[in-house]
Amino acid sequence: MHSIHDLPTPTALVDVDALEHNLATMSARLPGALLRPHVKAHKSTALAEMQRRHGHRTFTCATVREMIGMARAGFGDDLLLANEVVDVERLRELAAEQDRAMITVAVDSDATIDAAARAGIRHVLIDVNIGLPRCGCAPHDAGRLADLARSRGLVVRGVMGYEGHLMVSDDRTAQQRDTLAAMQVLREAASQVGGEIISAGGTGNHDVHAEHRGKTGVTEVQAGSYALMDTYYSTLGLPFHQALSILGTVVSTQEKWAVADVGLKSLGMDHGNPTIEGHKVWFCSDEHITFATEKVDDCARDGDSTRDGDAARLAARAPQPAVGSQIRVIPAHVDPTMAMHDHVWLVRGDQVLDRWPIDLRGW
Amino acid sequence: MHSIHDLPTPTALVDVDALEHNLATMSARLPGALLRPHVKAHKSTALAEMQRRHGHRTFTCATVREMIGMARAGFGDDLLLANEVVDVERLRELAAEQDRAMITVAVDSDATIDAAARAGIRHVLIDVNIGLPRCGCAPHDAGRLADLARSRGLVVRGVMGYEGHLMVSDDRTAQQRDTLAAMQVLREAASQVGGEIISAGGTGNHDVHAEHRGKTGVTEVQAGSYALMDTYYSTLGLPFHQALSILGTVVSTQEKWAVADVGLKSLGMDHGNPTIEGHKVWFCSDEHITFATEKVDDCARDGDSTRDGDAARLAARAPQPAVGSQIRVIPAHVDPTMAMHDHVWLVRGDQVLDRWPIDLRGW
Repeated sequence: MHSIHDLPTPTALVDVDALEHNLATMSARLPGALLRPHVKAHKSTALAEMQRRHGHRTFTCATVREMIGMARAGFGDDLLLANEVVDVERLRELAAEQDRAMITVAVDSDATIDAAARAGIRHVLIDVNIGLPRCGCAPHDAGRLADLARSRGLVVRGVMGYEGHLMVSDDRTAQQRDTLAAMQVLREAASQVGGEIISAGGTGNHDVHAEHRGKTGVTEVQAGSYALMDTYYSTLGLPFHQALSILGTVVSTQEKWAVADVGLKSLGMDHGNPTIEGHKVWFCSDEHITFATEKVDDCARDGDSTRDGDAARLAARAPQPAVGSQIRVIPAHVDPTMAMHDHVWLVRGDQVLDRWPIDLRGW
Repeated sequence: MHSIHDLPTPTALVDVDALEHNLATMSARLPGALLRPHVKAHKSTALAEMQRRHGHRTFTCATVREMIGMARAGFGDDLLLANEVVDVERLRELAAEQDRAMITVAVDSDATIDAAARAGIRHVLIDVNIGLPRCGCAPHDAGRLADLARSRGLVVRGVMGYEGHLMVSDDRTAQQRDTLAAMQVLREAASQVGGEIISAGGTGNHDVHAEHRGKTGVTEVQAGSYALMDTYYSTLGLPFHQALSILGTVVSTQEKWAVADVGLKSLGMDHGNPTIEGHKVWFCSDEHITFATEKVDDCARDGDSTRDGDAARLAARAPQPAVGSQIRVIPAHVDPTMAMHDHVWLVRGDQVLDRWPIDLRGW
């Protein structure tokens, strides 16, 4: 298997040069433990290994499965489950990894502290709500929860917060201002909680955290999407390249459209349609993507068609993709896309270099 | 494992009574070979076995994996791949099943006919475009393709078409009219093609096909979603019940919202947000669903809050779900949701009856 032309489709490709660029760029900005790469964005211990080669030995996870998988694959230096779990049985399975791994679990309530303590988890962070309507305790309650956790024998390593509502913004000045305000809330909670860790942030505002570290007090950033990227994050002008695509084969064509075998079962669709460079995507079905055979530039001129005349538009039309030819589809959201595949192919151009299992799928 | 309260979450549940109702209702309307159940909607040979018990021995698939999996699981009486494939290697793997299974593959172009012939596939249907901008040849080209297929030694069993653009409509009179018009196009193509099969339709217009069978000439309907249903199809007033839900655990609460561990990695999101009965869903993240602690009825009165007064609204608010309690989330689209899970639990109320692998995932 030496060329992508030999791969059955649909299948996920990771461009090794784009990935290396992204990892190097991020590790220059947030070296070592300043970045706690989020595994949920790729669910692959092979990719985590590349992140470790770039100097990161601490990792963030979103599921018990990711935590246990990382621990068993030898990434146990310092694993954070940045999510609440009340299932004592599952937490016991996780606690059983503590002999080989440093395990820390986020808690944000009496119930999650009780579950962690009963399961024999040793280390926790207090998860503080800093504006996103999701997990995290009210900031004023963080100190009480830390005291409760300590009274149950848990080591409280500090706080985390996730300002997910500030990741994507057209107004980067406002994004910076709001991030700094959210970090002030988190820092004040941290002063009530104690411990050494203040964990926050993500790909979309990693640069605010990198530039204002002295001011925010944040000790580590939980970015994940930067490694592979998607069309949603690509609108921000971040210094990361698109590394993930889904390879498809054109299986049917008509005069005005073509159909490839990359459908919504192989693409995270919550951020909308994916992209095909040079073409306009019409819609996705379970196993299909329908896209216009016109190039995007020509579609944009549709409103002028009476002026330009149909002949000129037809002349400008892109060559119809042949049945059997391959296309690359860029997902709108990387995390759920990776979770739909059981492996990815590491490629350079059309050359296939390696096959990586997505070994941390499921729960 | 006797109760859903013992299940780790998130996980998929299938209500056995709703499923049985749906299968019985459909098989009464389209008995035996008049229905060719579409496997893509559930990807489970265990569920296919229940469809077989309801009298259906012919099945529709969307991927080579589904075809091979069904053949090897003993469902080989008459399997249709209602999709175009040009990958000769994959088609050869499928052709190798022809000793134990009757395999038929859709073709809509010279290239797909060539691939099928080279792979040793024996039977094809001509896939005819009847209005949905996706696969299928132009209707006037169907006869030529049938001749080409026969010249390559393929047995042409007839035609198929999929009027996917007519599945969901507020105006059922228009839906019926447009379905009958599309079937006229398909019937005319069939007269050019020959063979005995005219295959079309789906859950959304299965009743049009059932009631007008003499007029349309359609010999079989390819419905799939009817078995498990979703909130998208539930708007149509069809006689099927919601059988699929994703079981979640509430992991965090605040005054105005609660968060459960059912996120967009466990839900097909292309048709929008899922539903939680009695609550208003705010948004989904990778591993979370955030929903209002108010009941839906109270949310609908938000505009009247100044008149009713905040006290009345608070009094009417639903009890805040406790951390650790379970909820059921109803997906907006069944097919991709099933593809995200590797098993489902068959349940009656809170009682767990069986565990079914989703064994036909992938490609």
